Amino acid sequence: MNTVQTLEINATEACCAPTQHPALGAADAQVAARVLKALSDPSRLRLLSIVKAGESGEACVCDLTEPLDLGQPTVSHHLKILVDAGLLKREKRGTWAYYSLVPGALEAASAGILAL
Amino acid sequence: MNTVQTLEINATEACCAPTQHPALGAADAQVAARVLKALSDPSRLRLLSIVKAGESGEACVCDLTEPLDLGQPTVSHHLKILVDAGLLKREKRGTWAYYSLVPGALEAASAGILAL
Repeated sequence: MNTVQTLEINATEACCAPTQHPALGAADAQVAARVLKALSDPSRLRLLSIVKAGESGEACVCDLTEPLDLGQPTVSHHLKILVDAGLLKREKRGTWAYYSLVPGALEAASAGILAL
Repeated sequence: MNTVQTLEINATEACCAPTQHPALGAADAQVAARVLKALSDPSRLRLLSIVKAGESGEACVCDLTEPLDLGQPTVSHHLKILVDAGLLKREKRGTWAYYSLVPGALEAASAGILAL
């Protein structure tokens, strides 16, 4: 079960922090950067777009290698990073694994950038 | 003069492309990943948040070192990456350089994630 790693920002309380300190604290920045790092690779962005465009919002791993012209180990590596970052979920059915977007994950990443 | 590097996606024409191919092409993915890579570091996210929260929407480089507890060369390195990615603009006034957000740049990065 994947959980959405939100990029929501907890603004530093105005009463306590000097104004020159960042609204985004170190811990929140670490969480946000981890998700954005998973998104910062061209192959991973293309994998997400294929999965999103797939029938029923999912794609079989067997259909993810050819479009990107990458080897299966490389694709698996990228998919693992996306799963670990909470952006994709993986479900094994029979021989193949199927990937789908974690609901709300891309929306949370997008909102986190606006909330900086 | 900085230009906003948009992450807008040009959907592949439905008439010509096999459905299993990604909506996000290789060239668009490269552009999007470059901006997201600049955003994928905790220190750079905090720098952006300080600049955004600054008076008049800008911050002097002299005020960016202490809040992050990083050395000046490290902060300068991160600021250069943000400028090169089209997220920050730099203006030298007297002794100091001042940084501000490139209008629309964070919004474009945010929209690009949703448009995958």
